[in-house]
Amino acid sequence: MRVGVLTGGGDCPGLNAVIRAVVRKGVQVHGFEFVGYRDGWKGPLEGLTMPLGVEQCRGILPRGGTILGSSRTNPFKVEGGVEQIRANLAEAGVDALVAIGGEDTLGVATKLAELGVNVVGVPKTIDNDLSGTDFTFGFDTAVNIATEAIDRLHTTAESHHRVLVVEVMGRHAGWIALHAGIAGGASAVLIPEQPFDIEALCRHVETRFETHYAPIIVVSEGAVPVEAGEGEDGMTLVSGEKDAFGHVRLGGIGDRIAAEIEQRTGKEARAVVLGHVQRGGTPTAFDRWLATRFGLQAIDAVADGEFGTMMALHGTRIDRVPLTEGTAVLKLVSPAEYAEAEVFFG
Amino acid sequence: MRVGVLTGGGDCPGLNAVIRAVVRKGVQVHGFEFVGYRDGWKGPLEGLTMPLGVEQCRGILPRGGTILGSSRTNPFKVEGGVEQIRANLAEAGVDALVAIGGEDTLGVATKLAELGVNVVGVPKTIDNDLSGTDFTFGFDTAVNIATEAIDRLHTTAESHHRVLVVEVMGRHAGWIALHAGIAGGASAVLIPEQPFDIEALCRHVETRFETHYAPIIVVSEGAVPVEAGEGEDGMTLVSGEKDAFGHVRLGGIGDRIAAEIEQRTGKEARAVVLGHVQRGGTPTAFDRWLATRFGLQAIDAVADGEFGTMMALHGTRIDRVPLTEGTAVLKLVSPAEYAEAEVFFG
Amino acid sequence: MRVGVLTGGGDCPGLNAVIRAVVRKGVQVHGFEFVGYRDGWKGPLEGLTMPLGVEQCRGILPRGGTILGSSRTNPFKVEGGVEQIRANLAEAGVDALVAIGGEDTLGVATKLAELGVNVVGVPKTIDNDLSGTDFTFGFDTAVNIATEAIDRLHTTAESHHRVLVVEVMGRHAGWIALHAGIAGGASAVLIPEQPFDIEALCRHVETRFETHYAPIIVVSEGAVPVEAGEGEDGMTLVSGEKDAFGHVRLGGIGDRIAAEIEQRTGKEARAVVLGHVQRGGTPTAFDRWLATRFGLQAIDAVADGEFGTMMALHGTRIDRVPLTEGTAVLKLVSPAEYAEAEVFFG
Amino acid sequence: MRVGVLTGGGDCPGLNAVIRAVVRKGVQVHGFEFVGYRDGWKGPLEGLTMPLGVEQCRGILPRGGTILGSSRTNPFKVEGGVEQIRANLAEAGVDALVAIGGEDTLGVATKLAELGVNVVGVPKTIDNDLSGTDFTFGFDTAVNIATEAIDRLHTTAESHHRVLVVEVMGRHAGWIALHAGIAGGASAVLIPEQPFDIEALCRHVETRFETHYAPIIVVSEGAVPVEAGEGEDGMTLVSGEKDAFGHVRLGGIGDRIAAEIEQRTGKEARAVVLGHVQRGGTPTAFDRWLATRFGLQAIDAVADGEFGTMMALHGTRIDRVPLTEGTAVLKLVSPAEYAEAEVFFG
Repeated sequence: MRVGVLTGGGDCPGLNAVIRAVVRKGVQVHGFEFVGYRDGWKGPLEGLTMPLGVEQCRGILPRGGTILGSSRTNPFKVEGGVEQIRANLAEAGVDALVAIGGEDTLGVATKLAELGVNVVGVPKTIDNDLSGTDFTFGFDTAVNIATEAIDRLHTTAESHHRVLVVEVMGRHAGWIALHAGIAGGASAVLIPEQPFDIEALCRHVETRFETHYAPIIVVSEGAVPVEAGEGEDGMTLVSGEKDAFGHVRLGGIGDRIAAEIEQRTGKEARAVVLGHVQRGGTPTAFDRWLATRFGLQAIDAVADGEFGTMMALHGTRIDRVPLTEGTAVLKLVSPAEYAEAEVFFG
Repeated sequence: MRVGVLTGGGDCPGLNAVIRAVVRKGVQVHGFEFVGYRDGWKGPLEGLTMPLGVEQCRGILPRGGTILGSSRTNPFKVEGGVEQIRANLAEAGVDALVAIGGEDTLGVATKLAELGVNVVGVPKTIDNDLSGTDFTFGFDTAVNIATEAIDRLHTTAESHHRVLVVEVMGRHAGWIALHAGIAGGASAVLIPEQPFDIEALCRHVETRFETHYAPIIVVSEGAVPVEAGEGEDGMTLVSGEKDAFGHVRLGGIGDRIAAEIEQRTGKEARAVVLGHVQRGGTPTAFDRWLATRFGLQAIDAVADGEFGTMMALHGTRIDRVPLTEGTAVLKLVSPAEYAEAEVFFG
Repeated sequence: MRVGVLTGGGDCPGLNAVIRAVVRKGVQVHGFEFVGYRDGWKGPLEGLTMPLGVEQCRGILPRGGTILGSSRTNPFKVEGGVEQIRANLAEAGVDALVAIGGEDTLGVATKLAELGVNVVGVPKTIDNDLSGTDFTFGFDTAVNIATEAIDRLHTTAESHHRVLVVEVMGRHAGWIALHAGIAGGASAVLIPEQPFDIEALCRHVETRFETHYAPIIVVSEGAVPVEAGEGEDGMTLVSGEKDAFGHVRLGGIGDRIAAEIEQRTGKEARAVVLGHVQRGGTPTAFDRWLATRFGLQAIDAVADGEFGTMMALHGTRIDRVPLTEGTAVLKLVSPAEYAEAEVFFG
Repeated sequence: MRVGVLTGGGDCPGLNAVIRAVVRKGVQVHGFEFVGYRDGWKGPLEGLTMPLGVEQCRGILPRGGTILGSSRTNPFKVEGGVEQIRANLAEAGVDALVAIGGEDTLGVATKLAELGVNVVGVPKTIDNDLSGTDFTFGFDTAVNIATEAIDRLHTTAESHHRVLVVEVMGRHAGWIALHAGIAGGASAVLIPEQPFDIEALCRHVETRFETHYAPIIVVSEGAVPVEAGEGEDGMTLVSGEKDAFGHVRLGGIGDRIAAEIEQRTGKEARAVVLGHVQRGGTPTAFDRWLATRFGLQAIDAVADGEFGTMMALHGTRIDRVPLTEGTAVLKLVSPAEYAEAEVFFG
């Protein structure tokens, strides 16, 4: 059997660990051959391949990123895209695909599977917002990086009696903010699922200074204030304005919150936007272990002919679930999960 | 209500995070008062207390160890021990206990609960060998430390064409070795649950050198060779003998395996015993998150009067299970779990 | 003798290590007593003190920040400030001061020393731009954090064929950028001392893509483009404009450079601003060693009555140099130092 | 010009950084060609070569170990060794050698230079015991790893009221122990240069328990007790004996000291031997910076025809010094340097 492998979407620590596991078990146990497809779905779409065997997988386990490259190309948005993929797979003699990616990449996989392409999916997102699996790899690494940053910022906040606002990844789901906020001992966690009240936050900040040391606020990039009225977001400052301290406030939600806090409480506040460092570099042990197990299970699913499935962690078990299960709805932080640790944030 | 808290057994990253969560939620939500018992069961046995409130829990979240101290004291091995505990609890006005510990500490908790003491347990072991819960805190930290060490040893092994044997914790269960071996890209993993054949291992080492770079062998401290006959353990060298390279081989299983490999394959081999660094220092984000959630749930269990339970992670949920469930049998690596990643070790 | 200790300016990993060394040696060897002054020069100015002895210094060696707090208060900008300080020192019976800080804090120390106050200085700046000493503590920590971030970003840049621009601290001097750029394998390093030509940078970026993997550009926050003409800075975009990819580009120099690169080369570019994580958290071993030795030497200088001096690292030796030497001119990256590693950046 | 490069002796973080700098500047600036010699002096001795160019140096900057391999082969101990080397260099058309190594490797380089071979040396030792240079690369990495381990062990020592003995590298010189001991806040540091009195150490341990938390003792592998008499080393236990707690004490000096402490003070003591983890893995920023600068300077020395020199760090400058200067005597910790921080250890 000849199996194609591709990685799509944003890069994520653990992608190489999946590739290595797929190939090692595929070659050594199942006797498969492999084709590496470059840059996500762009690879099978345009026939961009690279050699992929045990040799190419040496030493990649601890390395972040993906040796296959990635892209956000969607073949369903390309005229005749599906036919091109079929033709390219046929020409390369590829019988099955292992597609490693998030919502978008697996969404394509889901549709291709419905159209009869032999595809098995491996869920990937540092945001941890894919349904059907307890965790995705990359998430633990991102949370650890964010937590280490919060640890570092505590000493600065305390030494300068300042508020520090840490903006972490999470456009739709607040998992990174919630986990890193709990692990880092934050004073508040703001997530997309729960619009925040800027005035209540500021009052909370003032309380913290009274009874406690300087607060750290962890905020998902996708967090939003509660609406204050017709088209208003409840925040005073818009991008580009100077705040009470004369700092021009720009950029994302972290910066705007810091500006509001300064304005409303008179306390100095600074924002730190962690950005891409959360998604690069060597994976944690947990992510390497999870990614490796996903890869081993995925190639077994190929061998078993269980196409249209994706791998999922349930407790400590790796199960195969229908691809549709992982891509139907985003896994969001529930009100109960958000409330669980509110004693630290309240 | 007045609640006593104690930590028993070997120290473990995350103990302080549990204590902090128990106290913060106990005080702020339930209005409880707390008594800190020093040094495990020795505390209630001998009436050794320390003040424990929100103030004592400041800044302890990222710190390893336990502010309460620990010991392996077993009150059931002390004449009149149980009565002393009852008397001391009564005198201090303590209505309930939160006991954080491993097999031994929770074993005592189980028996005391059966005798009517109000006790709630929180499972703790870096070895991850407690039943009833998917993971225990401390384990993820230990695995990350071991994995980072393996990462570092790879470059040494390759540069010197050497075999490196890494001995990790795990007297009865091979979880740390298995997870770190997978995450670190080891060439073999030896665990207590699966006696190893030293000759087969040595042949495997030779194969690795032929086709591959220098091998890393990860071994649990409790790993044992298959029996070679009447009282023999299949290993040639005993402690204190010189091996083929003139090195005196001593100590634990790691050292003995390194000696056998040198003797039987003619390849240079070195052992590294990670030891206590695996159990100290700041916990990973996962362990802080798990420990915090165990603590929050434990004090809720106290508030609910659900004594005789211990906290358990199932998937992403924290459940309360009977204390007996966690302490009945050790959770060992099953043959299937051991075999899952054998393509890398075979 | 009674000695006051204060820390001024931005916080910096190693401050607590200095304090601990000053106090431990002062108490145990010289028999001194100590007064902790809070929040930099604000402390002696307003008579804000805290107890400072061996007890307060327990466990602070590995902790970032400063237990004394910090501020940027300048007593020379306060009417009657110097007299107030004299009066407060006299009232507290303080015979000498150890002032730990950067250009501003030591500038005040220099003037006070000239006015006859017994003061000894310890240089501190993560920017490493104080003259008279080979290195200052905090710098090594900042460089390591920046380097680790660059390591992580490499895999993202490669996986997505993107340019990543990393903005690091350094308003006037490019030391952090230069060291982290060399250590992290950057493709270009832009520093305040050497205005950059944005067009040349973009051509360089294109070359990298041809012959090499995706480039990482490290830029000091204080880096500036060469002037392109009357009041122009040679950059096309100003804050708030949309770039070719539709991203609104805001904020600092890193963001603007990323925007220009996208605009001029058509390559996707992203900026990461490391910010305050560079200055918080536990110090590296080098910084703890340097800070400790500075502290030991500083209190000996007090004992020797060598006031008006500051501690300086020369090679591996700690010397005492006149305070004026450290505060006269900023230590900048020389053209020769910038050129040394240009083979990697050219 | 055609230049050979080799790395000898124990592996050391930063070797690859040197190789990369030598090759990048050699090719891009000087137009040299390169030959990689495998496994130290064994390479030119036996004519073992590998291709070495810009391509081979991609991505190696952050990697520990050496892509060239290493050995301890000494051509002067091989009959006709020097002639073989000359013949192999001539045959390969190699005009000059860059030899990267420690005392032994550079000792060979020194003698070959005296015999007219064009050789330039780069000093390498994690022990930091080479004369003529302030620091060698690899040392900072080793000290950081040891310090991080000590940080972790503090919490264990405190939680269990135990003594922990940490054995670090350093057969002849105590630099790693001294720096890590200062940086880690050890209670005592034992180094080869200063024989220790086991009884005084035990009394010191007892004092620590009285006034302080549980002590950490850092000991160089080469540390020795003062002689107690005719052929006696002042220690009670020899390898293999059981101590007071029934533990069989074996192995190195760390283990023996822990046993003596238990025996003499009745306090529980454990030893941790850090071993090879100190010398593997990714180098710190400082070591990458130093190694890179050594490499750049070394290939310039080749271009300048300044053979028989080695690179040396003096303050922040890289100088060329005669090879003999680096290999004449070991750089040991002086009594004054040992005494500098004794207030923490006394």
